[in-house]
Amino acid sequence: MNAERRTPVTVLGLGNMGAALAAAFLERGHATTVWNRTAHKAEAAAARGARVAATPEEAVAASDLVVACVLDYDALHEVVDPVVATLAGRTLVNLTTGSPEQAREFAAWAAERGIAYLDGAVMTTPPGVGNPEMMFLYSGAREAFDARTSALETLGDPLYLGEDAGLASLYDVALLGLMWASFGGWLHGTALVGADGAKAVDFGQLAVRWLGGAVSGFITRYAAQVDDGRYPGDDATVDVQITAIGHLIHAAADRGVDSALPELLKAAMERASAAGHGADSFASVIEVLRKR
Amino acid sequence: MNAERRTPVTVLGLGNMGAALAAAFLERGHATTVWNRTAHKAEAAAARGARVAATPEEAVAASDLVVACVLDYDALHEVVDPVVATLAGRTLVNLTTGSPEQAREFAAWAAERGIAYLDGAVMTTPPGVGNPEMMFLYSGAREAFDARTSALETLGDPLYLGEDAGLASLYDVALLGLMWASFGGWLHGTALVGADGAKAVDFGQLAVRWLGGAVSGFITRYAAQVDDGRYPGDDATVDVQITAIGHLIHAAADRGVDSALPELLKAAMERASAAGHGADSFASVIEVLRKR
Repeated sequence: MNAERRTPVTVLGLGNMGAALAAAFLERGHATTVWNRTAHKAEAAAARGARVAATPEEAVAASDLVVACVLDYDALHEVVDPVVATLAGRTLVNLTTGSPEQAREFAAWAAERGIAYLDGAVMTTPPGVGNPEMMFLYSGAREAFDARTSALETLGDPLYLGEDAGLASLYDVALLGLMWASFGGWLHGTALVGADGAKAVDFGQLAVRWLGGAVSGFITRYAAQVDDGRYPGDDATVDVQITAIGHLIHAAADRGVDSALPELLKAAMERASAAGHGADSFASVIEVLRKR
Repeated sequence: MNAERRTPVTVLGLGNMGAALAAAFLERGHATTVWNRTAHKAEAAAARGARVAATPEEAVAASDLVVACVLDYDALHEVVDPVVATLAGRTLVNLTTGSPEQAREFAAWAAERGIAYLDGAVMTTPPGVGNPEMMFLYSGAREAFDARTSALETLGDPLYLGEDAGLASLYDVALLGLMWASFGGWLHGTALVGADGAKAVDFGQLAVRWLGGAVSGFITRYAAQVDDGRYPGDDATVDVQITAIGHLIHAAADRGVDSALPELLKAAMERASAAGHGADSFASVIEVLRKR
């Protein structure tokens, strides 16, 4: 597709992420208009061919598709409230970080003003923007997503989660939680094998293969169990894993490695076992996470 | 390769895992001799064509390659101590679960008696045995590993970790720790999005893709940082992630989801920040895991 055919896009906000978004649109030949509160941050985009708007009004008027990535929702309202008449009838894709509740409030505000609204979450760092394997999560107006999918593919792989505008933000934080927990387990294992002389890159290679293989296989199987509310423990039971994680804690203690993480996970498994899930799979632990 | 060319193998112990090992060898045409303390467990293997030995002596004498998978190291010694003269000169691959220290003691015991010894860990459940994608970890006598790689490929993908016989067991428990931590983070995220109506299978699909993509990419990069002892935070700093995990904890609290896991991870990040790693990457958290 040549540049003429690509959807013109406006990017509001040129922090690290906004600048990466604008660069990806420019790279793929979108006519791109940018605006930033402090003008000097627009220089790099201008050098790549962006049109620099002097005001939010001018920026929004330039394109039917407006992508916003600013500091927070207060900053977003400061930018868009004065230009709401111009935004009406256009699509606003908001990649500003915030809570699901903020996304829902903003979606209601936008709907009342005739703005097609999508809330989004960028599941990569700025250097990953433009990589088609990176996940971009969207929720909100389905028609807007369907109409803008091709332009959004410029940034990464656009995934639509549903009409509830809060879902992208909620999935975002849930996936980050998975990332931090995995980092914690991986660093713990790295410290453990490192105490006996193993290199982190050697363990890291196996860790990555393990996550993408067996662990992902378990998660896929267990996800269906969670939806069913039944957790057959035919592969590995909670009680067997309570014993096994005891070996991990012991090995960590022997090597002076902090074992607070496996101890917390063991305690969760023990609560699940006490609640009657000892012979069930690890998926049953969700029952004790939901109740407090 | 036809059956005649395949290495004859003896399997000692026919619990769930031992039975799966024997079945995989039989399936791929190895002449397979089995022994189990209680003979009736050998019936299934016999039906698949295994030769059932009446005694450990008879079993060990049948093959140069002996694979043991029994309850624990006490049970292992009970089986092999009386047949040590017959084992001398043969290869013993021990897949019995135990600690790195137990593996090292046993390796020393075996070396004194002229037994080529490999300690191993099976990184799958019994139904995964025979799948070439599943990881089987081995450590100990390199010559034995090199000589037996082809036979060990019958069980899964054999990975050699080093001469220290304790490494397979140590990597095993370290990888399981990564698995449990990932399960914990995934279940937490599942509970979080589930509170707002999302299905576990929908979140699970993204979780698997996230683990195999961006999270694995971070781990690969961070592993090199750990070996370097330097943790440049150019992608995402500890301090930024402390703020972000606060959003996760808030969202969990709003939805009645237990937030002990993200709270523990946040505390570890805060200790890393207090130790001077606020502008470093998450990999720097290993510095506070090692010291207690």
